[in-house]
Amino acid sequence: MNFRFSRYDLRLKHTFTIARGARNVSPVVILELEHEGIVGYGEAAPSARYGESVDSVAAFLSRVDVARFDNPFQLESVLSYVDGLSNGDTAAKAAIDLALHDWIGRKLGIPLHQYWGLDKSKTPLTSFTIGIDTPQVIEEKVQEAEAYPILKIKLGGENDEEIIRTIRRITKKTLRVDANEGWKVKEQAVEKIKWLEQEGVEFVEQPMPASDLDGTAWTRERVTMPLIADENSLRLHDVPKLRGVFDGINIKLMKCTGLREAVRMIHAAKACGLKVMMGCMIESSVAISAAAQLSPLIEYADLDGNVLITNDPFDGVRSLDGRLALSDRPGIGVERNI
Amino acid sequence: MNFRFSRYDLRLKHTFTIARGARNVSPVVILELEHEGIVGYGEAAPSARYGESVDSVAAFLSRVDVARFDNPFQLESVLSYVDGLSNGDTAAKAAIDLALHDWIGRKLGIPLHQYWGLDKSKTPLTSFTIGIDTPQVIEEKVQEAEAYPILKIKLGGENDEEIIRTIRRITKKTLRVDANEGWKVKEQAVEKIKWLEQEGVEFVEQPMPASDLDGTAWTRERVTMPLIADENSLRLHDVPKLRGVFDGINIKLMKCTGLREAVRMIHAAKACGLKVMMGCMIESSVAISAAAQLSPLIEYADLDGNVLITNDPFDGVRSLDGRLALSDRPGIGVERNI
Repeated sequence: MNFRFSRYDLRLKHTFTIARGARNVSPVVILELEHEGIVGYGEAAPSARYGESVDSVAAFLSRVDVARFDNPFQLESVLSYVDGLSNGDTAAKAAIDLALHDWIGRKLGIPLHQYWGLDKSKTPLTSFTIGIDTPQVIEEKVQEAEAYPILKIKLGGENDEEIIRTIRRITKKTLRVDANEGWKVKEQAVEKIKWLEQEGVEFVEQPMPASDLDGTAWTRERVTMPLIADENSLRLHDVPKLRGVFDGINIKLMKCTGLREAVRMIHAAKACGLKVMMGCMIESSVAISAAAQLSPLIEYADLDGNVLITNDPFDGVRSLDGRLALSDRPGIGVERNI
Repeated sequence: MNFRFSRYDLRLKHTFTIARGARNVSPVVILELEHEGIVGYGEAAPSARYGESVDSVAAFLSRVDVARFDNPFQLESVLSYVDGLSNGDTAAKAAIDLALHDWIGRKLGIPLHQYWGLDKSKTPLTSFTIGIDTPQVIEEKVQEAEAYPILKIKLGGENDEEIIRTIRRITKKTLRVDANEGWKVKEQAVEKIKWLEQEGVEFVEQPMPASDLDGTAWTRERVTMPLIADENSLRLHDVPKLRGVFDGINIKLMKCTGLREAVRMIHAAKACGLKVMMGCMIESSVAISAAAQLSPLIEYADLDGNVLITNDPFDGVRSLDGRLALSDRPGIGVERNI
């Protein structure tokens, strides 16, 4: 068992702006794990929010010696070893997790949703994300998202009201809001959320800083709109702490080290009465398709990272009128384009 | 996809007594699920404690129509449908869950521990259970258990002190105690547990009635010995409530509806900082081997139900010096003897 990896720059259709910054290109690392002539694909989409970069991913992967394990079926042992190599590097770890799962699915000749016992007809709708931007660009993006029945709106910047007003002028679609920790004071969070309740928003993600769990609990008691944790729900051990503070969690493969921990987080969340959303970074069809394989288990999907780019190196999950459409291809369900 | 089932009476080597009663024969239901010429085995070991009997299992299974599903890979859909048919019937539901999993493993040609990504060299030791009995019979049983480094002692009856004194006279082995809700008052529970701490007992299972969670929490603050939930940890949704009340949970396939929910409970427990034990009823090698397939994920095993019987209709997991030894047979890993 061995692997190789390389950097790949995903080019964005539009400059993408959230509360923390803006960019045109999003570099990822594509990993190929080989054993017995079968190749499994993985991907790391590093986030500066969690201290990762393409360089840190490469540095981490260079330290990983998978040759010491017999085969990719040794998921528990390999991934425990990989996770134990450092505290962070969650996207780098996810690249290995994804490749192992893809390999297993290809070896068994079944797609991962089948491996997990899921029904591919039960995938959820996925939202389409609209970043923070000028009214003119936002109008363009809403038009581009015509096929998607749900829009996810990034707020938490200077012009929240203007963004929602612009969108509501042209569409009555279901809106979901992601504040990305942008509302710093609990009174402000309550005020913003009460306003969003009037605007027909379904839920709000991470209204306040992850460090302010008390403020979030205080906010939740004063609003009716569900609050979904994102920056607060990184790993499995975070989940029980969010009972009574949030109504659901957003799981991202790049934050939680991959599919194996994502499955565990879904079950822990359900045990705690929390709804589950799966989200993404700007990612190619490798990571998006991997998350989509799990999506029959979740309530909300925000898996559009591959739709926002112009040079996807893989062909994978499609969306039909906003619904994730899984194929019968084995493993993650991707084929290389380039 | 279809199944058939029949009653089978497991004969016990010794009359088996716990705090709730005594018996010599323990009837189970063996289920065979067939699809595409492959047969997967399941088993229901009904418990009167949870309102089940061989008759109630048969009545429940007669209501289940699996022919409406395409194939056994549809675990999520089939098991959601089966679980939705009634509130209880957890052993009957487990029979179907086990057979589906066995079928999948046989179809893919891999044992379930491999399907779940586990390392079969990492199985735990299993304890050997000594029921409530006279000093003479207890002495015999301790001798019979020579190969097992850990004994699990059933207490909660009239002669707790006599039982422990008898055992400690002849062995220094690690002891685990199961009180089966036998200590009805919290002050009594504290007194018993403090005494067991002196006797070198590793942990105690379910000291107090499941209905008295407050009394259990009160007890836990006053003792150092870990408390493991049994009658309190039936299903996935029970797990988060046990944080801060118990130190671990005992998962039994017959209480939790089978392997799929057991996997979920293990992850929910780990998220909550709870240790995991897997236990059993009096069961044939079908159900014991199924639980053993999961055991590389858990801390404590009490999977000796098949060792306590004389007419096991299946050959499955063995134990070597008390350690569960998984084979490379596909699925649950059993073959019919009879």
